[in-house]
Amino acid sequence: MMAGALDGIRVVDFSRVFAGPAATQLLGDLGAEIIKIEEPGTGDSARVFGATEAALQRFGGVSASYLALNRNKRSITLDLHIEEARAVALRLAAQADVVVHNFRPGVMQRWGLSYDAVRALNPRCVYCEFSAYGQTGAMARVGANDVALQAHSGLISITGEEGGEGVRSGTSVVDLQGALAMDSGILAALFHRERTGEGQYIETSLLRASAHLMGNFYTEYWLDGTIREPMGTANHLNVPNQAFPASDGRVIIIASGDKMWRRCAHALDAAQLDRPEFAKLLDRRRRRAEVVEALSAVTSSMTCAELLQRLSAVEVTIAKVHSVGEAADHPQLAAINGVVDFRFDGHAIRSVAAPFDMSATPPRMYREPPMLGAHTDEVLRQFGYDCEQIAALRRVGAIGPTATASERTPSA
Amino acid sequence: MMAGALDGIRVVDFSRVFAGPAATQLLGDLGAEIIKIEEPGTGDSARVFGATEAALQRFGGVSASYLALNRNKRSITLDLHIEEARAVALRLAAQADVVVHNFRPGVMQRWGLSYDAVRALNPRCVYCEFSAYGQTGAMARVGANDVALQAHSGLISITGEEGGEGVRSGTSVVDLQGALAMDSGILAALFHRERTGEGQYIETSLLRASAHLMGNFYTEYWLDGTIREPMGTANHLNVPNQAFPASDGRVIIIASGDKMWRRCAHALDAAQLDRPEFAKLLDRRRRRAEVVEALSAVTSSMTCAELLQRLSAVEVTIAKVHSVGEAADHPQLAAINGVVDFRFDGHAIRSVAAPFDMSATPPRMYREPPMLGAHTDEVLRQFGYDCEQIAALRRVGAIGPTATASERTPSA
Repeated sequence: MMAGALDGIRVVDFSRVFAGPAATQLLGDLGAEIIKIEEPGTGDSARVFGATEAALQRFGGVSASYLALNRNKRSITLDLHIEEARAVALRLAAQADVVVHNFRPGVMQRWGLSYDAVRALNPRCVYCEFSAYGQTGAMARVGANDVALQAHSGLISITGEEGGEGVRSGTSVVDLQGALAMDSGILAALFHRERTGEGQYIETSLLRASAHLMGNFYTEYWLDGTIREPMGTANHLNVPNQAFPASDGRVIIIASGDKMWRRCAHALDAAQLDRPEFAKLLDRRRRRAEVVEALSAVTSSMTCAELLQRLSAVEVTIAKVHSVGEAADHPQLAAINGVVDFRFDGHAIRSVAAPFDMSATPPRMYREPPMLGAHTDEVLRQFGYDCEQIAALRRVGAIGPTATASERTPSA
Repeated sequence: MMAGALDGIRVVDFSRVFAGPAATQLLGDLGAEIIKIEEPGTGDSARVFGATEAALQRFGGVSASYLALNRNKRSITLDLHIEEARAVALRLAAQADVVVHNFRPGVMQRWGLSYDAVRALNPRCVYCEFSAYGQTGAMARVGANDVALQAHSGLISITGEEGGEGVRSGTSVVDLQGALAMDSGILAALFHRERTGEGQYIETSLLRASAHLMGNFYTEYWLDGTIREPMGTANHLNVPNQAFPASDGRVIIIASGDKMWRRCAHALDAAQLDRPEFAKLLDRRRRRAEVVEALSAVTSSMTCAELLQRLSAVEVTIAKVHSVGEAADHPQLAAINGVVDFRFDGHAIRSVAAPFDMSATPPRMYREPPMLGAHTDEVLRQFGYDCEQIAALRRVGAIGPTATASERTPSA
């Protein structure tokens, strides 16, 4: 097996739900050892997010979100409300290369697990804290989630039908931008540590991630006061650059440059489209509605396949508007090694691979998502706890029972 | 000045437009030296994206997008269609720690600037290639942009009004996810190189970035065939978890757990909301329309401020739906050190900071975005070209003229 870029790096992961687990899954794909700390009984609340009762029965008691974000991790349960569990957590953190958490500001301090507490024992530690609105300022202790920051950041205000009220981006774009922001910060800090021996504290938040997503809109507003609003599938940069109707679906057509627009017009219907008043980019931008109407009249009589064939042939950018199923099963994703297959609780599971590939240290799958607390005893032994100490921790409720897939009653 | 995590790292950046420049800006924020290669005459096409003629006159001839994504870089013009320019590019790449480009697959090969060509001279190089649909598979040579991949990935199909056709996310979420994917890959490769001396090739794409954004929807579909559709500001995970009308705007209210819902109901109108049929999460999910209608009837008679005050007091998650201007100017972003101010061509410019902060090696601003080719001669001298060689390159059109802000005719 090829080496991973993060082989030998240990991550103690207190994060729950979405952004943190997505971040640590990527570190695991890169070869890091991920120890996922969960609350006994319930565990990471994403284990049951959005899953119906029937689906939870079927798939080993976990949701699709959990399966999508938790490969390459081991799970240990710790009830951090109990002093003995906090002592275990501190011992783990003292021997970690990376600590990640997304508890609200102040919580890890109260539990004696702040960066200062960990650094005192482990000065090489990279400690990454992820919050809603950051660690300082008037909103530091306000709770939020992805959609709250889609609202707060203005993203909702520019997403939706023209003239409409604004909707959310259908996926958790702020969480996932936050996940890769955490990873970038952690990896930069590991690089710095490798060169200097110095650990450090990384801080990011849904607010920072959302502002990064909105950066060019903010800069534009700060320049001249421009406030953008929803434009359907279009944007303010170029025309045409949006969805058009076909007889059997929709396609995005992007023909922003003047030469590309001319090729587009001739490939579809020169008489209707190659008009002098549409010839220049700034004219098409001014006459957006007319251009869209004329182009739609032409495209709506053709199939998606015909439009794809005609416009690809003249190097005009075109893409089909896919459903989730069409997108997931499109062969190009598998062709670039973009899917990962594994088994979980007897079921075949497919998920999306790391967001990049590497020639020398490729991201890889080596461990299915863990059942809640499946590795509690194994991890405790690894950190020097003996059987009696483990039994004592279990008696006071500091750790939960050890449940593994093989011990479950088969559900079907 | 504090050290940067990437001090001493040199990035030769052939990327244009959005994802690549966003990626290399962050590397620059971390202290890397970024040499931006641009085409003489036009340069990075994002320099003029979406800017009106008036704005281009006012702001040193560049767009907000360019200003938002190109700090901490120097610009050199090279016409890579000319052999002498390609020789310069290869000399730069041979002395780079990182090379980044987003030309279509095959272009850098034709120019003698492929990974293999660079590695032969510079085996420690981390070479990052960013494309539309990846380097292999039937679609490898198909062009695309952010909105094309929002369509291809299914993101448009789950974004929009309930029952509607699907719209784009208002910002370039695929580009920006791709930017942080590039950064994560590059930083992981630099870490690996620091430990082993080995360089490598990193490959990512709009397709990989979009699939990462859609991962949990794909896993869900692969599990049981579920195909999600647009839900306005709501999602399928919890109820209530969406926008509600106030008398003077809209707020997001998230009260997903049963206890939080009860606190929400009592803080607003217990008689209308604390009903037994709404008490349980799965019931609220089944009766989504009724819950939304009942809650909307209550919220629409209150102001945003009143709702924020009442629900924050009982720790129910609430956020205001901001316009771009309200979001940009909200004091919390500045409070967490989330904005960066600089001057460009005599104008005060504000932009968004790196998407994370670091205690020992904080991201920082040290250079305003470059005028096109402003550092051509300076960079060439740094790489050993003398005045005569530079003049010869200019005579054959391999490099453009040196233009600096101070040499421009003031526009006002």
